[in-house]
Amino acid sequence: MATVEWDPAAAGVRLIDQTKLPLRETYVVCRTAAEVAAAIREMVVRGAPAIGAAAAYGTALAAREGRLAAGAALIRAARPTARDLFWAVELVERAPDPLEEAHRIARATVKACVAMGRHGAALLPHDARVVTICNTGALATVDYGTGLGIVRTAHEAGKRPFVYVMETRPRAQGARLTTWELRKLGIPHRLIADSTVGLLLQRGMADAAISGADRVCANGDVVNKVGTYPLALLCREHGVPFYVAAPMSTIDRATPDGASVRIEERPAGEVTTFAPPETDAWNPAFDVTPARLVTVLITEHGVREGAVV
Amino acid sequence: MATVEWDPAAAGVRLIDQTKLPLRETYVVCRTAAEVAAAIREMVVRGAPAIGAAAAYGTALAAREGRLAAGAALIRAARPTARDLFWAVELVERAPDPLEEAHRIARATVKACVAMGRHGAALLPHDARVVTICNTGALATVDYGTGLGIVRTAHEAGKRPFVYVMETRPRAQGARLTTWELRKLGIPHRLIADSTVGLLLQRGMADAAISGADRVCANGDVVNKVGTYPLALLCREHGVPFYVAAPMSTIDRATPDGASVRIEERPAGEVTTFAPPETDAWNPAFDVTPARLVTVLITEHGVREGAVV
Repeated sequence: MATVEWDPAAAGVRLIDQTKLPLRETYVVCRTAAEVAAAIREMVVRGAPAIGAAAAYGTALAAREGRLAAGAALIRAARPTARDLFWAVELVERAPDPLEEAHRIARATVKACVAMGRHGAALLPHDARVVTICNTGALATVDYGTGLGIVRTAHEAGKRPFVYVMETRPRAQGARLTTWELRKLGIPHRLIADSTVGLLLQRGMADAAISGADRVCANGDVVNKVGTYPLALLCREHGVPFYVAAPMSTIDRATPDGASVRIEERPAGEVTTFAPPETDAWNPAFDVTPARLVTVLITEHGVREGAVV
Repeated sequence: MATVEWDPAAAGVRLIDQTKLPLRETYVVCRTAAEVAAAIREMVVRGAPAIGAAAAYGTALAAREGRLAAGAALIRAARPTARDLFWAVELVERAPDPLEEAHRIARATVKACVAMGRHGAALLPHDARVVTICNTGALATVDYGTGLGIVRTAHEAGKRPFVYVMETRPRAQGARLTTWELRKLGIPHRLIADSTVGLLLQRGMADAAISGADRVCANGDVVNKVGTYPLALLCREHGVPFYVAAPMSTIDRATPDGASVRIEERPAGEVTTFAPPETDAWNPAFDVTPARLVTVLITEHGVREGAVV
């Protein structure tokens, strides 16, 4: 998988176009900071760590264009919620060699995913039935994945995980991307409508839920794809562990809690797929899972409970 | 609205084709019990009270065909969960004049909805912001609606309700049918993805949730569209009343609790809309909301708490 990759020949960053999956596996090359900002905004690249790596390359391109401040500002304005974006832009802005720093960030992201996979897989029983929301696989990172990386590690270690994939409306990242990745990995899975997770847990059909995060606040609140909070609440009600997997780059010590985070609101048209023309919709992309509902946070450094500072 | 209506000229029951809405407003006429059974199975007609009325006319057609037992068996086999279907078939089977009994059932359903509307509207504040799931309007009944009938009564009494319409995947009855009805009624509303209801309640954006029911068990457990249970759990967590509106015909005193109800599992293809070909899906159509999460049950007889026997 090459979700976000520097292309030396093209002098740009090459992204798998996630808006076209699973129907077509196509790639786009962004050669300017403005092109990277547009790709983030339009969700050609999505998933907090993947956005971080793309933003890093975008900032390196801005430096090369000789308009570092303007280019970095464009990228910062692309999407408001994922912490990794701001973290990556800032690191590249400060670095003596911006492109080298972007490479370092991309490599570090993969390394963090592999470490998270190891820490998280140890928590899963042999035949774990795992619920996932959105996409937390290689497509959400540079390679390997956060939440799905844990399932992958368990699978590669000879365990036999089974995944219930939440569709994740409105953009259906679960249905479109997670099923596509799981099939490539040979991991058995079944798709469910988001609302079905209640009955699934009622019937004792899951041993764990694993989500990623777009931002983890100082008190441990988790901002992630809308629907994560209902999933976590259901897990608590049914005594099922709710795990969050996120690299340290997603942790935002400067933001005290979830209520302080700006939740991106996206166009109504993403929600009105089946509705009569001109129907209005409210389309916030994220929600806040209170820290108390998170069984443990899994980072590249290991497993931790509660507040992160 | 003529969701389910006897057509004397055609000697059959006329149904608005709910699989074609909101794009096309078309009607089908069923002239045999087998045609009615197929219409129920394929969800041309859906919603427990509407299914009940259609089943009543289907059984009357079976009687006219001179094959009452066989026709009634076909209709009973069409869908397993909605109580009203079995209730209506049994009443018509026993009646001296089957068609007259079907007319009586259809009229009684509308009358029950109007009464529920009156009882329920009294519970809503003047500017109530109401969450709905699935479709509980005229399309789900013969006319008027159960849950949406309450909103309609409040609106017609001069209150100013606002509705947050849950899309209700996989068949999107909220997006397709509830928005269509609310627009006709002139009631302001906004569509949301099902997963968004967590953030909505987190932010204090709703004053009540109202659902219908496919079956209410003796202990008060409510079997309804999958996603109702997560909605009810979120309502409890945030101190928002969760109302269930259902006519007495939906109450099943013979079934002790929700765990005893057969939950229909529908084809995977309803869920795999956005997924790669050959993706497998689990598609149960209903879930169980424990009685303790139901603030009150609203029937044509008034408002009641807890067990129904």
